[in-house]
Amino acid sequence: MTAPILHGGGVTEAAARFGGTPAEWLDLSTGINPCPVSLPEIDLSVWHRLPDRHAEEAARLAASRYYGTGDAMPLPVPGTQAAIQLLPRLVDAGRRAAVFAPTYGEYARVLSAAGFTIDPVRHVDDLAAAHGLAVVVNPNNPTGRLFPPEEILAMAVAMKAHGGFLVVDEAFGDLEPDASVARYAATSDNLIVFRSFGKFFGLAGLRLGFVIARASVLAAFREWLGPWAVSGPALAISTKLMEGDTEVIARGILARKAGLDTVLSAAGLKIAGGTGLFTLVDNDRACEVHAALCEAHILTRKFDYNPHWLRIGLTPDENGDRRLAEALQRTGV
Amino acid sequence: MTAPILHGGGVTEAAARFGGTPAEWLDLSTGINPCPVSLPEIDLSVWHRLPDRHAEEAARLAASRYYGTGDAMPLPVPGTQAAIQLLPRLVDAGRRAAVFAPTYGEYARVLSAAGFTIDPVRHVDDLAAAHGLAVVVNPNNPTGRLFPPEEILAMAVAMKAHGGFLVVDEAFGDLEPDASVARYAATSDNLIVFRSFGKFFGLAGLRLGFVIARASVLAAFREWLGPWAVSGPALAISTKLMEGDTEVIARGILARKAGLDTVLSAAGLKIAGGTGLFTLVDNDRACEVHAALCEAHILTRKFDYNPHWLRIGLTPDENGDRRLAEALQRTGV
Repeated sequence: MTAPILHGGGVTEAAARFGGTPAEWLDLSTGINPCPVSLPEIDLSVWHRLPDRHAEEAARLAASRYYGTGDAMPLPVPGTQAAIQLLPRLVDAGRRAAVFAPTYGEYARVLSAAGFTIDPVRHVDDLAAAHGLAVVVNPNNPTGRLFPPEEILAMAVAMKAHGGFLVVDEAFGDLEPDASVARYAATSDNLIVFRSFGKFFGLAGLRLGFVIARASVLAAFREWLGPWAVSGPALAISTKLMEGDTEVIARGILARKAGLDTVLSAAGLKIAGGTGLFTLVDNDRACEVHAALCEAHILTRKFDYNPHWLRIGLTPDENGDRRLAEALQRTGV
Repeated sequence: MTAPILHGGGVTEAAARFGGTPAEWLDLSTGINPCPVSLPEIDLSVWHRLPDRHAEEAARLAASRYYGTGDAMPLPVPGTQAAIQLLPRLVDAGRRAAVFAPTYGEYARVLSAAGFTIDPVRHVDDLAAAHGLAVVVNPNNPTGRLFPPEEILAMAVAMKAHGGFLVVDEAFGDLEPDASVARYAATSDNLIVFRSFGKFFGLAGLRLGFVIARASVLAAFREWLGPWAVSGPALAISTKLMEGDTEVIARGILARKAGLDTVLSAAGLKIAGGTGLFTLVDNDRACEVHAALCEAHILTRKFDYNPHWLRIGLTPDENGDRRLAEALQRTGV
């Protein structure tokens, strides 16, 4: 029953357990921009018709500009998760997968379920010939560990030496464009970049991500997903938003991030990492803090594998920061 | 380049070839309700947040009532196509698949690509021990052939005898509730029903379908798709619409269907079949009629495998019927 909370988005469950209505809760359990951008107007035909090739091409062109991939057109997928689900098909079964750890749990879950043995790794030198696939989330969720492009490209080279793929999940990369390797993926033999649309734009319900890789890899993902995998509204809305003023969105996120970190520092919480969209706190009493915040109807994210960690997302405004500050004060960290 | 037209939804391509803007074209190439229902209001949080378990459960409950499955909860998927893409995983590779033919081409395409040998079949007696999977579209696209439930159930029994599944695609079944076997699927060992949300409601861009089958089969589809496979707007909008007045939608479609068939009959075209959402015409000069209608900026659907067939969808209103009638008159069928 707790799986939805572990994955974020489980404020309804938390409200059922701790009281209040979901709307009354402050949901800091996700890494999604808490200030979703205004939805652009889209034509009714976008809802009515099957999304056609031209709607997809417009989204791909906007994504190529937004992600800086030059002439290479990113492939839209119905959320990064849909691409993760397909990873086992990319590599021969029975091989091992290296996952830079700790990180987003869905990679190990999906690959294990498909029969892969997972080796948690920390460094490029940990990549071995047995690994058909390596996964690095950059910047990492939840630690915020950020590899510079040259280190990521070195991983790709290491994986290529024995015929393996490197997947770089840049789901939280919108605020770190200099660290992105998206521009290299289309001309690489074995580098695959995943981008998430929903986190930065605050539209996770839309279900949209992009895969950037050489043409034959994109063709395989496209074939596995089949036609019309992404909804018409997701294509139309993302096209307009990626072509719009993304700087103003970034500034808004960074202001919220500064507000959050000020609250956490003032409460005496040790900031152990994070990205522009969340902060990771390290505290001996993290579990108690999580529970106390639940009593105050504030949902944060704890981790089975590290009881000292709490991941705390951005609040939507200064009132949210104040509410969090007061709850932390009552908790007495 | 013609694939999008073959699959419908390719009016943009047609306009590029024959002139006019896509909006000026009368797109009769699909089997989608041409009068999309009004979109219900949905909360901004539906776009913002990951769709949670409760949003999915609400859609499943509404679908169970709308499809008449009793206590069995249909599984939402991001379009029937997403479920078709997963069919090869349901059955051991190397077996044969029986497809009641001719029918919607995606079954043979996806299964062939996965290494299945396809046997086109016409009758329950054609199902053999070698078939790990049988597929019947009911009512059928494009012929409209409609098997009564007892014949469908006999197919399921025949397939069960040698451990095979029967997939019944009821994408055009909303107007034929008495023919549906959706109510039997959850308690059957090997009957799987696919339903399409977008055709009847006129919202194909939404990408939503439902799978109805026994719990372990639904669990497999859910595992293959992964979490959050269906967008939040699709879940929220479909919940409201399935709980709404679907009778008025059905009456609207049947009025449009009557208008279309009146035009086609008056033009001397022989109606060879169809469903409530399209009519199949059999004519020696079908290919010329298709081209002449393109010149009039009316897109219909022709078939590579039968040059005498044209599938013609509903027009949105009486003006559309008149426009089609005048174009057919000029064509001189």
